[in-house]
Formats: sequence, structure tokens, C-alpha cells
Amino acid sequence: MSDRTRGTVLAVDVGGTKLAVGIVGADGQVASSSRGPTPIGADGEAIWVALVALIDALPDVDQVTAVGVGCGGPMVWPTGLVSPLNMPAWRDFPLRGRLQSQFPGLDVRLHNDAPCLAAAEHWIGAGAGVDNMLGMVVATGVGSGLIVDGRLVNGNSGNAGHIGHVVVDPAGPPCSCGGRGCLEAIARGPALVAWARSQGWQPSGDGSARALADDARVGNAAAVAAFERAGRAVGIAIASSAALLDLSLVVIGGGVAQSGELLFAPLRAALAEHARIEFLRELRVVPAALGQDAGLVGAAALVLNGDRYWSPSVVALGVAESGRAGALGAAKHGG
Amino acid sequence: MSDRTRGTVLAVDVGGTKLAVGIVGADGQVASSSRGPTPIGADGEAIWVALVALIDALPDVDQVTAVGVGCGGPMVWPTGLVSPLNMPAWRDFPLRGRLQSQFPGLDVRLHNDAPCLAAAEHWIGAGAGVDNMLGMVVATGVGSGLIVDGRLVNGNSGNAGHIGHVVVDPAGPPCSCGGRGCLEAIARGPALVAWARSQGWQPSGDGSARALADDARVGNAAAVAAFERAGRAVGIAIASSAALLDLSLVVIGGGVAQSGELLFAPLRAALAEHARIEFLRELRVVPAALGQDAGLVGAAALVLNGDRYWSPSVVALGVAESGRAGALGAAKHGG
Repeated sequence: MSDRTRGTVLAVDVGGTKLAVGIVGADGQVASSSRGPTPIGADGEAIWVALVALIDALPDVDQVTAVGVGCGGPMVWPTGLVSPLNMPAWRDFPLRGRLQSQFPGLDVRLHNDAPCLAAAEHWIGAGAGVDNMLGMVVATGVGSGLIVDGRLVNGNSGNAGHIGHVVVDPAGPPCSCGGRGCLEAIARGPALVAWARSQGWQPSGDGSARALADDARVGNAAAVAAFERAGRAVGIAIASSAALLDLSLVVIGGGVAQSGELLFAPLRAALAEHARIEFLRELRVVPAALGQDAGLVGAAALVLNGDRYWSPSVVALGVAESGRAGALGAAKHGG
Repeated sequence: MSDRTRGTVLAVDVGGTKLAVGIVGADGQVASSSRGPTPIGADGEAIWVALVALIDALPDVDQVTAVGVGCGGPMVWPTGLVSPLNMPAWRDFPLRGRLQSQFPGLDVRLHNDAPCLAAAEHWIGAGAGVDNMLGMVVATGVGSGLIVDGRLVNGNSGNAGHIGHVVVDPAGPPCSCGGRGCLEAIARGPALVAWARSQGWQPSGDGSARALADDARVGNAAAVAAFERAGRAVGIAIASSAALLDLSLVVIGGGVAQSGELLFAPLRAALAEHARIEFLRELRVVPAALGQDAGLVGAAALVLNGDRYWSPSVVALGVAESGRAGALGAAKHGG
């Protein structure tokens, strides 16, 4: 780690409904933060202006020594051209480049939001001290980040962790990716709701997965069955992932996961049936420990603990940053 | 890399039917090698004696600077107590310790055979230059090793790569691991044969998967269907693994894979159906490039290219090697 990244950093967390920014210290604690709604509509610049306004209002933002960013995917990584699925106004928006212009001379590192959440849980959350874990989100979408042999995994294009597209039932429903039987096609919130309705659930409240959970808690059969089906699917995907990667821990957050035992009971039943190989006997599946600050902590982790959480290949950086790749490549080995 | 590992190394490849030893140069080329059958029966010492005889007969074995070993799992890793499934005479046999006694003062590094094969294909085989790949074996068992962000993955207990226990059909047949619907329960050679017989195949030749392939090539319907079923299962497991890890390449070897298009055609069909997410559009699946020397090359890679292929955690090494852990941990960062 260079001296430049020893101080506080600016953390940015960009989502389809919410923008968050914060100042994060070297210990991972959020010193100050600010949030606002993501402007809706076709104007990409309006989103950028809103983000800059949040940043400028942070105390001591002129003292930060680096910038870490988490953003919804997909993105060109590590270049940082972002096209978040649920933000149609940004297509190949140069988020990293824009922030670099705002903070000339500072490292600006950007990654997909799910890997950032996994980094946060690994750094100071439920996965602290664990070398092989998956940090998972079950919400409107289903995604994850992977910590393998103590490091955040990037994959070929920065997209490692797409557990939502692990096949849990080859004869299952079609998925938005074009495939069939993916975990996400069964366990994302809107899929639970749609399936429950097909089984006769009369939507209550706002008709969301949260309303479905409320009905399941009071015994609505279709609602209970929807969580049963989703929990089993999550358990099967975890069993497959854990066998492939020899994991000891899975941390789960996100709105659907907050339904608690409705999801976790069938999840554990599926694990008991499918995660049977000897070396998985101590596999633990636990709820996320960090709350709404997790995205900021994970974005900050990209720069504050880069040895573990930031390792684009020199080739990828060469494309992204031309002349700076050499220096960064060397810095990676500086310990 | 220390000077001690710059020279040639002794490579050892221990399997249930065959023992192989060789002298491997820094470029991964096998300078000399020798093979013999694995002694059958309950006498573990007889296997050890046969292995030592093969080693002692190698030319220039007194010149090697380190020892790399691949062995069938499971094992306690990196300690090197091995209990190969198909070698009941060895249960917690201290293979690493025995070899250490034969070569005092040299590094002796041991890993599961599938990760060694993946390391070999990545080092000088079909995966050279690729940062994210899976090296897979489809034979009497189904296993793999993983290269992620340019390094061989170990996992929590050295067991990463068990793709044979990825769930490809939650309603599928029981597996030897105690689970259900695992890839291995469908695609291992004996499973193909058993399923084909259940579909009316009258075993020809020696009744093996090879004989089944011969019958499939001349149009036997049950034999063709068995490969179709197995190929689809392999394709589904690859689709799941590639989405999870953002892979760009899968290399497949092993006896069942040598049946060629019988397996690869349905495999590609399943990939076309299930590996649809955008970032997998350039995923390639190819046959292994290295022949019978792959096991020796991979064992040698553990020491000749340790920066990529050998990274037990300091904690694990502390248990295994007490006082030496610090020195090895430091050496990892020496580049």
C-alpha cells in the first residue's frame, strides 16, 4: 500500500434507486456519509450532477487520498464504463473517468456492487478472517462476490460472482439472460411474487416480495411455497458453488434474505440434501453482518485493502490506463 | 523463486492404477520418466517401495532441486496425508513426509491430481496465457482444477475444483458423496455404462465406457443416448461454473472426454441453451493438449512456477511445517 492510500478515502455506491457517498477511514469505519435518490428518467447527466452534489457536500472531501466506487453491472472493467441494468440513462457511462477528472492525481478504483459487498463482509463483517467465502445478495436480482484464497475474485472481465446464473433446475423457467433454470429466475423477489400469483396468491399490501413474506408468516400456503421453492434453489446453488470452490462460509444479504427463516429453513434443507461431500461438513451459511453502509465499506476496501480486493491484470489495466499500468502492476507486489 | 528451484525437479504422479515419476526442467519439458503399475492389495508399504524403486532408477535424480507430487484425493492438504479413493491401502499415508525424508532439505510440495492437471494445461498446454480457466477430467471420476485471476485455487482445505459435485439435476440420481443429481453421478464412465444398460444396452467388449463409445459410433441408440445425457450434464455444470467464475476457457481431458463428438456435441448444445449471459459469449471449451505427461508436468509446476500454482496460507503451512512457514510465506512475495 502506498502512503497515498493510508488516509481516508471517498467511497461511492451507485444503485438504481439510491446514490450514497461517504468518507471511510483505514479501519473501514464510515466517518460521514450522505444519501439521495437516483434521478429517474433518460438524462444521464442529471444522475451525474446529483452524485457530484452529494460528494461536494461531504465534510473533508478535499482530504481524501483515493476514491473507491461500487456500481451496478454490467460494466467494462476495470476501465469503468458502466451500464447498470436498472439505470437505462447510463449506457457505457464513463463513471470512473468522470471521477478521475474530479480527483486528478488520485487512484480511482471501481467494481461491480456485489463484489464490493463481499469485500466489505470479508474485511470487517461476517466473513472476517475467512479465506474462502461467497458474499451473496438475494433481492430484486441475485448476485455475489467471491473471496478465494483470501482475495476478491475478478474473473475474465470483472464479472465473477454471477451466482444468479448458476443452473439450479435445467427444466426450470426462462431467465432474463436468455438461459433457463438459473437461480435468479426462481429466487429474485419479482420471480417469487410472480410464481406465488400463479399459485393463487392474492397480492396484499404493495404486492412486493416483502408483502409476500408478511403473508407467508401468517400461513398463506402459496406464499410459504414460494419461499420454500426459492430457498431450495438458493441452497442448491450454494451447494454447487461450495463444492466447486471449497468454501467454508456463505454470507447472505438483500431484501429477500431479510425474510429470515422463510428462506433459510428450506435453504438449509437443500444444503443437507445436496452439500454432502466430506470437505463441506463445516460449511456455514449466515446473514450479512453489515447494514446499509456495506456498499460504501466495500467500495473503500478496493483502495484501503487493495492487496486483497484489487488485482486487475496488468494487461487489463494497460487497456484502461495506458502508461500507469506498469506502476500499478509493480505496486501490487509491494505488500 | 529461490535459486534452489531453478534447476530440474522430481515430479511424482500417483494414481490408482499407475505410478509415474519424471525429471522435469524449468521449461516444463519432461527430460526423463518412468512408469509402473500401482501394486494392488492391502499392503501400503508395497506401494511405497514400488514408488521409491521407480524414483531411484531415474537418471540424475540426485541433481533435482525440489519435489512436486500429484496424488488422487482426498488428502489432508498441504500436510500431505493422502487417502486416495481408489487406493484403500493408503489411508492418511504420509506421502509428503516420506518423500521429505528421502530428499532432506528440499521443498516437497503435494496437491490433488486434478489441480495438478489444470496447472499443467495452464502452464504449457491448452490454457497457456489464459487467466481464468477450468481444467477438467471426465473419466472414472469427474474433477477439475481452477485457475482464477492467473493462480491455481486451493480453497478452504485444498479441495477446490470438485465440479463433479456441482448439482446438474436436483431430481437426478444419488451420488457416492451422499448427495443427489451431482455431475459425477451422471457423467463418470461407470455411470454412463450403468445408465446405458438400464436403457437396454447389451454390453460389448469389456463393457467399459470405451466399449460403450464404440457402440455409440455405430449408432446403438442406448449408447448414443448415454453420451447425450452425460454431455448435456457436463455442459450444464460448465455453464454454472463459468457464470460463477467468469471463465474464458474450459479444457477437458480424461477417458470419457476422448470419445470426442459423442460427448462434445451435446455438451455444446447445453452450453448454447444455458451459458447465455453476455460476458460468456467468448467462452471456449477445448480438449486437453497434454498427453500422459500432464500429471508429471503439473506436479512439477507446483515448484517450478510456485508463484502461480502454490499458495497454501501461512496458517495452513504453520500446521504442516511449523517453523518453516514464515520463510515460505515470505518467499511467496519474492516474485
